[in-house]
Amino acid sequence: MGKDKDKVSYQLKVPKGTKDWEGKDMVIRDKIFGNITDVFKRHGAVTIDTPVFELKEILAGKYGEDSKLIYDLADQGGELCSLRYDLTVPFARWLAMNSSIQNIKRYHIAKVYRRDQPAMTKGRMREFYQCDFDIAGTYDPMLPDAEIIRITCEIFESLGWQGRYTIKINHRKILDGIFQVCGVPTDKLRTISSAVDKLDKSPWEEVRREMTGEKGLDAEVADRIGEYVQRKGGRDLLDQLRQDEKLMANESAKAGLADMDLLFTYLKSFSVLERVSLDMSLARGLDYYTGVIYEVITEGSAPQTQEGQKLKSAGKKEAKANKHASNIDGEEDRSNDPTVGVGSVAAGGRYDNLVSMFSGKQQIPCVGISFGVDRIFSITKQRLASDASAAPIRTNEVDVFVMAFGGKGFDGLLPQRMEVAKRLWDAGIKAEFSWKVKPKLPQQFKAAEVNGVPFAVILGDDELAAGKCKIKEMGLPEGHPEKDGLLIELASLEQEVKSRIGRRGGSAELSDGVDGMSLDEAAKAAPKTG
Amino acid sequence: MGKDKDKVSYQLKVPKGTKDWEGKDMVIRDKIFGNITDVFKRHGAVTIDTPVFELKEILAGKYGEDSKLIYDLADQGGELCSLRYDLTVPFARWLAMNSSIQNIKRYHIAKVYRRDQPAMTKGRMREFYQCDFDIAGTYDPMLPDAEIIRITCEIFESLGWQGRYTIKINHRKILDGIFQVCGVPTDKLRTISSAVDKLDKSPWEEVRREMTGEKGLDAEVADRIGEYVQRKGGRDLLDQLRQDEKLMANESAKAGLADMDLLFTYLKSFSVLERVSLDMSLARGLDYYTGVIYEVITEGSAPQTQEGQKLKSAGKKEAKANKHASNIDGEEDRSNDPTVGVGSVAAGGRYDNLVSMFSGKQQIPCVGISFGVDRIFSITKQRLASDASAAPIRTNEVDVFVMAFGGKGFDGLLPQRMEVAKRLWDAGIKAEFSWKVKPKLPQQFKAAEVNGVPFAVILGDDELAAGKCKIKEMGLPEGHPEKDGLLIELASLEQEVKSRIGRRGGSAELSDGVDGMSLDEAAKAAPKTG
Repeated sequence: MGKDKDKVSYQLKVPKGTKDWEGKDMVIRDKIFGNITDVFKRHGAVTIDTPVFELKEILAGKYGEDSKLIYDLADQGGELCSLRYDLTVPFARWLAMNSSIQNIKRYHIAKVYRRDQPAMTKGRMREFYQCDFDIAGTYDPMLPDAEIIRITCEIFESLGWQGRYTIKINHRKILDGIFQVCGVPTDKLRTISSAVDKLDKSPWEEVRREMTGEKGLDAEVADRIGEYVQRKGGRDLLDQLRQDEKLMANESAKAGLADMDLLFTYLKSFSVLERVSLDMSLARGLDYYTGVIYEVITEGSAPQTQEGQKLKSAGKKEAKANKHASNIDGEEDRSNDPTVGVGSVAAGGRYDNLVSMFSGKQQIPCVGISFGVDRIFSITKQRLASDASAAPIRTNEVDVFVMAFGGKGFDGLLPQRMEVAKRLWDAGIKAEFSWKVKPKLPQQFKAAEVNGVPFAVILGDDELAAGKCKIKEMGLPEGHPEKDGLLIELASLEQEVKSRIGRRGGSAELSDGVDGMSLDEAAKAAPKTG
Repeated sequence: MGKDKDKVSYQLKVPKGTKDWEGKDMVIRDKIFGNITDVFKRHGAVTIDTPVFELKEILAGKYGEDSKLIYDLADQGGELCSLRYDLTVPFARWLAMNSSIQNIKRYHIAKVYRRDQPAMTKGRMREFYQCDFDIAGTYDPMLPDAEIIRITCEIFESLGWQGRYTIKINHRKILDGIFQVCGVPTDKLRTISSAVDKLDKSPWEEVRREMTGEKGLDAEVADRIGEYVQRKGGRDLLDQLRQDEKLMANESAKAGLADMDLLFTYLKSFSVLERVSLDMSLARGLDYYTGVIYEVITEGSAPQTQEGQKLKSAGKKEAKANKHASNIDGEEDRSNDPTVGVGSVAAGGRYDNLVSMFSGKQQIPCVGISFGVDRIFSITKQRLASDASAAPIRTNEVDVFVMAFGGKGFDGLLPQRMEVAKRLWDAGIKAEFSWKVKPKLPQQFKAAEVNGVPFAVILGDDELAAGKCKIKEMGLPEGHPEKDGLLIELASLEQEVKSRIGRRGGSAELSDGVDGMSLDEAAKAAPKTG
């Protein structure tokens, strides 16, 4: 391709809709993954890892219209494969292939692929992370469902989102019952359901117009629906619905309300009931949900009125600019990607029939949730940037920079610096030194400061001759008694360093970095509500 | 595709050459990743995450003949992309794109893709993990190189491989010098170099035959080469070479030997010199190496004489069975995948010119190593299976199973079990309970035993009425005073549980699982040699 002559004849970039993760973004993302994983493990979850691509026919027929967004591998001979579109279908395929496994709590944090029109304003990428937790198996009603809600709360608390998120909840059977009671014809159930789902962004008049207009629903039926689906609340609303005789006469609604009653009881035991809002307009796009459904929103995730309008028109412009995107844009709210559309940061529900699509016979009931890590990342990053009290984020975790200084004839003390670094590594301490034979002291300090290294161990000829070295905490204020460092015995170096790191509040990994997101905090995460 | 009628009309499997990771395998692999990451961080490394696919032209012209193994994405409109083949080229692409970054220590643990003939006998997969660590930037000679060797030792020590691995080391400039001094024509340097690289598996006679036969080298030249490349040793060998006047008269050899001399001095400071073997036959396949090269072998990785022959003939059978594989098989030893071929578990070297292939002008010297995680995993798993003293591997990390028991009229104590589980989670303790309203006690014990949960908290009506519950360490021997558990105050539940977990030697995560591979051990990892 003529590249030998002209080395950079092509564009140096990553593919459209993908990005490199690096620096502080990478650190924040890793901490988010760490917090989420800690909570999953606290509840006994295990992880599995499936291939990035699946046989094409495994994915076929699972995503409805969105199937057009699936990335295929080129046909280079052999099997036809596609990049995974989500983590749920591979999980169901895995369950179907491993029939000895009748129950599991599994989490999976991995990238998924959608040949979508990238939209930066919505955080919509072609390669992005999903973070899924699912419980498969037959248990007494609503107990796994309740634990998923509890886990969801623990995760957002551990991320420092106390009081800043709401879990909208509903039940497919309640919704179906409402539609039946209101007189929606069976063949219009799905389309009316998806119209209702837009109520989080559109006023009722608009949704009603969609129902009675293009969807051809009776105006009276629409009005009856409107009376139900605009309601939100907690236990009070649930009790009202359970006293609605018309609703309770419907088998589906009755079953859904009984589930919800039990769920609320369990959520109260788990002290998370007050984080939940029964939202009759929540319908969720995916067809495969069969029971309780939920969606987590936060003040940062749902577009504010003004900003939302801006985002919307930006979205429309993007759509116009690219004709291929037109139907994608129209589909935005129906996407099952929790990072797109209504601005939820996590979403999921019960799907009792998906595994049998693969196994043919075997039915394994499942309930799960998917966290939109990219959106959680954006909100967390924004919050950190605006929080002046947040500790600065370090990109590496080095605790000690080993330095040397000296006057005339100074040879750099390289073997001594290497020996000290080695002793620190042997003691499990994170340490660096300058890769120069004769480094200048200011350069060494600068290297430590750039990375926010908290301690310097400073070697000098005279000190070494006396069996000593200097330890200095970086960034102490002027006038502090230890501002210029402290002489310590070289023999007790490791203990001196360790006790100082300990006194500073654990290793850099634990204390520095993202406010409210340390592993320590995660361990203490306790929903304060309910 | 007729799937609506006949749901399972296709094969339920993963694509050829890929696999699902699950259960204990997943736990062992995660612990290996954790240990490796800890060592990288101890040395100040940061991580970056690049997309799974790159523009096709980024990968083009980087892998020579192996380019045919690159997976392409289907052309569905837009850019042409390929799955990454390794992590080095994306790293170089990233450095070239981010010209503000002039130096970095980065690690990257991720999957790479090769449309190779899968060979289970060699652990060759189409999707497999690589674990790369690279240092980019201009520093004083051999200091980053020495630290990579030190890091490599810390990693294998932390994996519990004390004394069971050797780092073979050589230098491209020494090799080139030897070939020049022996009289190899310039146009034959590469092909003779790759013949020499086979000395780890073939006797000298065979290699000599290849040189003088198909490669048309003078017999005398071959004999002179033979005198050099069959030598292995440490500082003694290096000193001999440095007294070889013919060799020292060659500029390339002289520079390489000076590098090696300095490197050995640094490795002695780092106490890892005795892990290293100067091996004059080590040449490494990739063209882009420009300085020191190394390869880690272990008693478990290099095929033993007999077993090696078995593996070899298995490989040949595989090759015969599939015509497409014939040239792949011929290439096996030239692959830059450290998990394939000679059986090394890690490999790498200095490559000072790769970044400029992308940047055109900017030169960023690099040195790095790639760990073959899949092979390290296989060896570790085998070792654990044959080590009767190794603690059993648990798939989850739950510390406490919350149970209830009672006689006639027992209602299951579900709200109480939920309350206790909630308190434990709030305290950061990993806990589970049965998702049954009225579970039987033996079922609850079995659920705990299956997962190796170390403690049970047992609730009963009478105990609760007295503000107490029972705590029981699982698996105590008959006759142990606490065999039947101990009554404790419910009010001090969290402290009682925490102190017991602590006494057992840290949380399950730290003490159980893989022998010699706990995080604790990693922190203490100290090469005992040198």
